[in-house]
Amino acid sequence: MIKAGIIGASGYAGAEVVRLLLNHEDVEIVAISSQSYLGQTFSSLYPSFYTIFDKEFVEDNEVIDQCDVVFASLPHGLSEKYALECQKLNKKFIDLGADFRLDNEDDYKEWYGLDYHEKDLHLYSVYGLTEVNREKIKESQIIGNPGCYPTSITLGLYPLLKEKLNASTHIMIDSKSGTTGAGKSLSETTHFPKCNESFHPYKVAVHRHTPEIEQELSKMYGDKIQVTFVPHLLPINRGIISTIYVPLKKEVNEEDIEKIYHDYYDKEYFVRVLKKGDIADLKYVQYSNFCDISLHFDKRTHTLVIVSCIDNMVKGAAGQAIQNMNVMYGLDETKGLQLKGPSF
Amino acid sequence: MIKAGIIGASGYAGAEVVRLLLNHEDVEIVAISSQSYLGQTFSSLYPSFYTIFDKEFVEDNEVIDQCDVVFASLPHGLSEKYALECQKLNKKFIDLGADFRLDNEDDYKEWYGLDYHEKDLHLYSVYGLTEVNREKIKESQIIGNPGCYPTSITLGLYPLLKEKLNASTHIMIDSKSGTTGAGKSLSETTHFPKCNESFHPYKVAVHRHTPEIEQELSKMYGDKIQVTFVPHLLPINRGIISTIYVPLKKEVNEEDIEKIYHDYYDKEYFVRVLKKGDIADLKYVQYSNFCDISLHFDKRTHTLVIVSCIDNMVKGAAGQAIQNMNVMYGLDETKGLQLKGPSF
Amino acid sequence: MIKAGIIGASGYAGAEVVRLLLNHEDVEIVAISSQSYLGQTFSSLYPSFYTIFDKEFVEDNEVIDQCDVVFASLPHGLSEKYALECQKLNKKFIDLGADFRLDNEDDYKEWYGLDYHEKDLHLYSVYGLTEVNREKIKESQIIGNPGCYPTSITLGLYPLLKEKLNASTHIMIDSKSGTTGAGKSLSETTHFPKCNESFHPYKVAVHRHTPEIEQELSKMYGDKIQVTFVPHLLPINRGIISTIYVPLKKEVNEEDIEKIYHDYYDKEYFVRVLKKGDIADLKYVQYSNFCDISLHFDKRTHTLVIVSCIDNMVKGAAGQAIQNMNVMYGLDETKGLQLKGPSF
Amino acid sequence: MIKAGIIGASGYAGAEVVRLLLNHEDVEIVAISSQSYLGQTFSSLYPSFYTIFDKEFVEDNEVIDQCDVVFASLPHGLSEKYALECQKLNKKFIDLGADFRLDNEDDYKEWYGLDYHEKDLHLYSVYGLTEVNREKIKESQIIGNPGCYPTSITLGLYPLLKEKLNASTHIMIDSKSGTTGAGKSLSETTHFPKCNESFHPYKVAVHRHTPEIEQELSKMYGDKIQVTFVPHLLPINRGIISTIYVPLKKEVNEEDIEKIYHDYYDKEYFVRVLKKGDIADLKYVQYSNFCDISLHFDKRTHTLVIVSCIDNMVKGAAGQAIQNMNVMYGLDETKGLQLKGPSF
Repeated sequence: MIKAGIIGASGYAGAEVVRLLLNHEDVEIVAISSQSYLGQTFSSLYPSFYTIFDKEFVEDNEVIDQCDVVFASLPHGLSEKYALECQKLNKKFIDLGADFRLDNEDDYKEWYGLDYHEKDLHLYSVYGLTEVNREKIKESQIIGNPGCYPTSITLGLYPLLKEKLNASTHIMIDSKSGTTGAGKSLSETTHFPKCNESFHPYKVAVHRHTPEIEQELSKMYGDKIQVTFVPHLLPINRGIISTIYVPLKKEVNEEDIEKIYHDYYDKEYFVRVLKKGDIADLKYVQYSNFCDISLHFDKRTHTLVIVSCIDNMVKGAAGQAIQNMNVMYGLDETKGLQLKGPSF
Repeated sequence: MIKAGIIGASGYAGAEVVRLLLNHEDVEIVAISSQSYLGQTFSSLYPSFYTIFDKEFVEDNEVIDQCDVVFASLPHGLSEKYALECQKLNKKFIDLGADFRLDNEDDYKEWYGLDYHEKDLHLYSVYGLTEVNREKIKESQIIGNPGCYPTSITLGLYPLLKEKLNASTHIMIDSKSGTTGAGKSLSETTHFPKCNESFHPYKVAVHRHTPEIEQELSKMYGDKIQVTFVPHLLPINRGIISTIYVPLKKEVNEEDIEKIYHDYYDKEYFVRVLKKGDIADLKYVQYSNFCDISLHFDKRTHTLVIVSCIDNMVKGAAGQAIQNMNVMYGLDETKGLQLKGPSF
Repeated sequence: MIKAGIIGASGYAGAEVVRLLLNHEDVEIVAISSQSYLGQTFSSLYPSFYTIFDKEFVEDNEVIDQCDVVFASLPHGLSEKYALECQKLNKKFIDLGADFRLDNEDDYKEWYGLDYHEKDLHLYSVYGLTEVNREKIKESQIIGNPGCYPTSITLGLYPLLKEKLNASTHIMIDSKSGTTGAGKSLSETTHFPKCNESFHPYKVAVHRHTPEIEQELSKMYGDKIQVTFVPHLLPINRGIISTIYVPLKKEVNEEDIEKIYHDYYDKEYFVRVLKKGDIADLKYVQYSNFCDISLHFDKRTHTLVIVSCIDNMVKGAAGQAIQNMNVMYGLDETKGLQLKGPSF
Repeated sequence: MIKAGIIGASGYAGAEVVRLLLNHEDVEIVAISSQSYLGQTFSSLYPSFYTIFDKEFVEDNEVIDQCDVVFASLPHGLSEKYALECQKLNKKFIDLGADFRLDNEDDYKEWYGLDYHEKDLHLYSVYGLTEVNREKIKESQIIGNPGCYPTSITLGLYPLLKEKLNASTHIMIDSKSGTTGAGKSLSETTHFPKCNESFHPYKVAVHRHTPEIEQELSKMYGDKIQVTFVPHLLPINRGIISTIYVPLKKEVNEEDIEKIYHDYYDKEYFVRVLKKGDIADLKYVQYSNFCDISLHFDKRTHTLVIVSCIDNMVKGAAGQAIQNMNVMYGLDETKGLQLKGPSF
């Protein structure tokens, strides 16, 4: 049994790691920590788990001491020291925050306002977009788990950019996320009477996931890609859907696109390219680790519309983290993630 | 491996049996049927299951032919013939409809407008409220799986009535159900713009679950119990909550009540009597087979308020059906039902 | 033009007074105050009003200075001093809080933990349940506007208790409220991911509206009435529905009940007794000052189920306050309240 | 008093005309028709109006006979004959459907599959985008009221295209609509358990509003504009938000854009260009006739993101129709539309 621990398990992403690992037959959750809820039980915060998982939150260091693999879900700037400690102790470290996602320290400084203190760590860490970086993840001890928006967007664009079918290197991306993405902390935005029956974009073209998206898309494309990225807040709990607009090269036709996406993804359990005519809906990925992609060719303007959906808490956070853990340990990638999401 | 089949698998309750059985390691779903969707795939109706479970709907009889245990989720009046056939072939039959719930044919006639055609079957069948009738279920081949409202209500009142702590035999029950209880068929009531931001009772004091509730409560109490039962429609997808008002006998106090409920239920995995001060919330049983019960003593009026929650599709239908199957086969009762429901 | 002001106009109830008064042709809103948002504009808090009503929040005293009638929407314990000042200056004072609702200071002490400091004021003030106390309201300068739950409950029971048709003096009341009832302040309960797809009771049998409900029902009945009152939180924005269970005297039949309710209410513009067979739904009173009542006779148990709906922010707060203002000024009672609530 | 009638008043758009006209002091609703609900009362369909507006649905022709101005809300292909009749009788005709929106019959044929039978009528009719075509509307007797999506989009782009600030003539438009846009008829899409907690695009790049959008944008721009238009269904009742992506000409800066939008719209009561930094939210236009526009400059890519919100049933249908009626009659344009939308 793998001994797993979660630092920052009281937040939504951390708590979701707990929920999923409880279904993983090769893993035992040995310790969970929380600064704010120290000494309280997990189930007092998340009553679904009453009688199932009543473990208490302990200090962060106790988690590292007791575990083989550490998941961290912390505000940015706090992960480096734990990653370093894990590295020294030869333990695996999977960071669900933003600290190991950006290759370029300048980007981190610009968008997050902080420096890297352990620059070397960033050379060893791997960006954990499993389907794209699987081979590197196998060899790595430190994973920067992708952001939720970037996961939906990079998976949606990967075959297209890799094959350079786009006619433009400036891409418009309109994303919509459920409210769990805003986290457990109270805010005006997620006050029910305000959020309910509401819909609006936020951080228009200035969201922190922008440099992460551009970094990964540019790597795929092999040259600089720029995006205008606009996230919106959906009055639902779970799910992200990204609608992506890409003018295609003249010589590319609809069949080419379909074929390439299936070539890339038909072997991937967690990426489902929908049948032509079907439209991706975030309802059908909720509570699962799937990324559903539907492709729509606007022949009038020779533009491809890509619709890419994930559960922001699963494939967009905890699920992909566990998928990465499975890869790191050489386990079947779907272990603990064989959830059957509901359709209603 | 147990070969299981579902007749009427296109409706919500049948589809939920599919979802849950896919998580059951001792069961293989061999066949599913649907009159309306014959020849179509399960995943075309419920796209969450695309690539996971793409089986086609076949004819009802094919299900019986191929399976050891048959789950039926049909409009009332249609289950008897399949139950008879299963009995003849020595197969187990678990009916999620209303046809095997009422002991008294007159009640069935009055509330459902139909006769029993196979009267003998009703002598053999058992009312599948697992926690109460477990021993009988072990011996039975035909199960009348309880209705969703009755499950929440009978579990909520069982210890109290069994111990005759109630001061009145007329009990007020105010229940609220999510919209999946209204089923997959389109209706004015569940048209989104009408249902959303709406709330109202329906079938006030005339709901068909009334005789079933009174039958089971009366059996528990050992004498006639009457209820005024008012169901309401909640603008959410899943869950039933019943708020039950019972004036207590003078000599009964709050501690007695707490003790008795824990005595009855602490050994039951799927019934959680919450800690004093906690309040049951249907959110925390969604997608799970739990029944959460909280007890509230109104000392001003010496009245007990019982709050009992279930997921109407799981403990209130498919989950309890599988729990009963586990009992019938002598399996661990929690197999296939070890789901970790989300708290957000 | 009547000069009106609102103290505490940044909260939901106060802001709703603003919204409604903007439609009142005989009233000018002269000043609004808020401790927390002093100097900010109303429309910065409530952007629907941008360009329509951009007035700034001032100090409480400025409101009293400038206005003929003052609406106060404050935490309990803060209204007496403003009421006193208005009385001295011969201005009308309508309190939307709890400070002038309870006749008995002991009740206020027990449920709100405070004393009355200006005991005389409470002799002059009138409980503003317009349909019941209209004549007294005409003569009064200080109104204690009823609570939202009490409004739905007392209007629902008034004819029945006044005519003493109830067989019991202990009444079970199951109420459900939208989230605006919980106010503008952030809370765990109204955090969207938690509140959405959730439903639960709260303050079971210990809600502060209990003494107010019993006080008014007892006055109507002419003798002591006790209630077991359980409020629930609905995951919608607006509306309260109360489902009330009353065993009837043997000699009372369904027709009697229907007739009496129509006799009492057919002349009341804002109380609609629905046609037999129709069921009250809070959707159809949202954004209006109506109270819809439907009556359901459970002949099996000779029990009446009364369903009573209001918009908690309108008839349950701001609307009734304005209705009372109209009565105090001798205006047509419906002025400013002729809103046509949407059905979708 | 203007005598108004509504043909097709049982659908949502027609019913909303009723709701709004009931607030219009210069208009009397003389007759309403419905094929499906003939002889039933308006309030039996829309119970909010019980005791307020209990008028019966009559035949279509009775509406025309009795009224000075006829609003028609019908499936496409049915409006021409009524428009013709109104023209003959010198009555005003305002069509809320699609029959008088497209200048080019070929577009109508391609997208709606029908021919124009009364070609002359289309020469006289005016596209009723009030803020843009006000002068023509004054002189017209037949109005083709704009579609909901086109209203949000054309108002959002008008100043920009009129001033030719766009760097591209191909514009990406990502729109999201509440479910009332899908109408009163039952559909799988708007079945509550399916629609709730769901989100997805539909008719991707093939929605019928596309030619209407391109027609109007092209007129504004003075040359051909093409759009890739993707509508999505929001699990809320009301409102449309369009997020529009426009690369700007190099020489155009953020201040230019702000100034131009204010120049065009500051005199328009119903179009609110939000302050820099504020973000349009459909919550704040619900139940009102406002169009809220916020402008966001993505300096990294020199792209303008325009966010434009309306209530799809008001400014996107009934409200704009009444605004047009006011213009046709020379009334104050805001009459009957001075609703104060709620912020919660």
